[in-house]
Amino acid sequence: MTPKTEDLLRRMRAGERVALAKLMTLVENREAETAEVMSTIHGQGDAMVVGFTGPPGAGKSTLVDQVTRLLRGRGKTVGIVAVDPSSPFSGGAVLGDRIRMQDHFLDPGVFIRSLSARGSVGGLARATRDMTRLLMAFGKDVVIVETVGVGQSELDIMRLADSVVVVLVPEAGDTVQAMKAGLLEIADIFVVNKADRDGAARIKVELEQMLQLRPPRGWSVPVLTTTAVDGTGIEALVDGIEAHREHLRSSGEGEARGVAGREDEFLAVLRDEVTRRIERGVRRDSLGALLADVKSGRIDPYGAALRVVDDEEVVAAVLRAGSR
Amino acid sequence: MTPKTEDLLRRMRAGERVALAKLMTLVENREAETAEVMSTIHGQGDAMVVGFTGPPGAGKSTLVDQVTRLLRGRGKTVGIVAVDPSSPFSGGAVLGDRIRMQDHFLDPGVFIRSLSARGSVGGLARATRDMTRLLMAFGKDVVIVETVGVGQSELDIMRLADSVVVVLVPEAGDTVQAMKAGLLEIADIFVVNKADRDGAARIKVELEQMLQLRPPRGWSVPVLTTTAVDGTGIEALVDGIEAHREHLRSSGEGEARGVAGREDEFLAVLRDEVTRRIERGVRRDSLGALLADVKSGRIDPYGAALRVVDDEEVVAAVLRAGSR
Repeated sequence: MTPKTEDLLRRMRAGERVALAKLMTLVENREAETAEVMSTIHGQGDAMVVGFTGPPGAGKSTLVDQVTRLLRGRGKTVGIVAVDPSSPFSGGAVLGDRIRMQDHFLDPGVFIRSLSARGSVGGLARATRDMTRLLMAFGKDVVIVETVGVGQSELDIMRLADSVVVVLVPEAGDTVQAMKAGLLEIADIFVVNKADRDGAARIKVELEQMLQLRPPRGWSVPVLTTTAVDGTGIEALVDGIEAHREHLRSSGEGEARGVAGREDEFLAVLRDEVTRRIERGVRRDSLGALLADVKSGRIDPYGAALRVVDDEEVVAAVLRAGSR
Repeated sequence: MTPKTEDLLRRMRAGERVALAKLMTLVENREAETAEVMSTIHGQGDAMVVGFTGPPGAGKSTLVDQVTRLLRGRGKTVGIVAVDPSSPFSGGAVLGDRIRMQDHFLDPGVFIRSLSARGSVGGLARATRDMTRLLMAFGKDVVIVETVGVGQSELDIMRLADSVVVVLVPEAGDTVQAMKAGLLEIADIFVVNKADRDGAARIKVELEQMLQLRPPRGWSVPVLTTTAVDGTGIEALVDGIEAHREHLRSSGEGEARGVAGREDEFLAVLRDEVTRRIERGVRRDSLGALLADVKSGRIDPYGAALRVVDDEEVVAAVLRAGSR
């Protein structure tokens, strides 16, 4: 590791926000030292990681805002990773939310980082995990991961959270959509936000009925109601999150999730690192004439790729060329 | 290749739709023979590949529907790959569109395949490219790739098209958003759909002004207007697409795109194939104690991954274990 990066790590551990931000940028851009940095900070900190997801317009940001306020009131420090995997055409609200969140900007106990699909090399799920780990190493008590929308990438992102809060609103079809989206499987807590609107009681009952159809799992998923704009229900939500953390600890489920998570993470890092080296290696001409034959169309891309992976020495040469 | 797959390829080439559908499923699921199948069919067919993208609600599906109808009227066969990378919460319309498209279902000259993020192993861009290649090998004259939304994954998807049609509607902010989304760079043809609404003329002028600010590129991007629901402007759109194809041919730009595309495709296939073998190899215990140490937390995932990639023999052993 370069002395500069070592210095950043030292200053980050000493609580310097600027050093944390610089390390985040280094890691998000997948610079050469990324894996070393992540390896160094691994396992540092003991933050509770809470994911918030749900459809656009469910009021997740306002909810996260209120939860943050309450946690700060209880003396906890908070890190927020706000993930926007959506297209620029639907992303307008996020920017506004982030501006609003600047309420917390002057509070040294809160650190907010936004991630978007366009800015992240190597995938949002990975960048989110890395940012979360950095916030943990920075010493935050709670790290909140917030995603807009609920496609496959958001489900992947939520896998890193200890507790997943799924936020819905009293609107027709939401519960069915939530089921289709796989949210029923990942939710540790359901929140019906904007509970002052018509239909809140109905959607709560629907969710509870759907949850009863599932085989019991040790933790009974609560369906809470909140009105984020005026703070109603936030205290019960934070209590619910803490109860779930306690359940993870006492039941051993937290440890089981940790084992699966570490294996996933290892595979993801291995995949990314090999991919990165292959791309660099190929660009550095380690394949000689083969690449020229691909470009000219003399050999088809699939056949050429098979020829490379089936030859151990060629793979080794490409990886070597891409390793530094 | 197994005799069964060889038989599918033979029947697909003979025009059997069921065989094509089965090969698509095999490839989409990344079954073991995928690379061989794709290598075998590579370069077959001579379809014009046209991409349609733009924000949700722009009427892309109706437009594709009308373009398909017109192409059929001109005696051309059409394949459609309808890609939905969006979350299930915004995906409702797509299903409806696909049902509507069943108009064409009884027409043997049209083949429609839908892809969604949830169903595709190994990425939507790759699955889209593979489905397009299969439709080309099947002998379609035109393959239309339609995506909902315009995030990074959609831009990647559009790179495989010979001609990209960007569809907008007369709504405030659309042109600015289109610029932010990178659509100005990828559009070969702009369409202002729902041109009977207020503001259509204004957005057309705005787009034309923005296009004039760009350095000239040989092809002058037209801004067309359509009203897809009643078919207005469809004929001019199809003529525009054919003119663009002619430009690609005569200017040599088509060949240049082909070279870049083949290199991209080679890298993507190489990456996917190595990744797939690594995952399989790791699951087959080729790492021995290391994986156990990762799971137990004795070694951190990043450090473990670095240890693997930095050791050529270990990488080779993992790839070997995952190769069959």
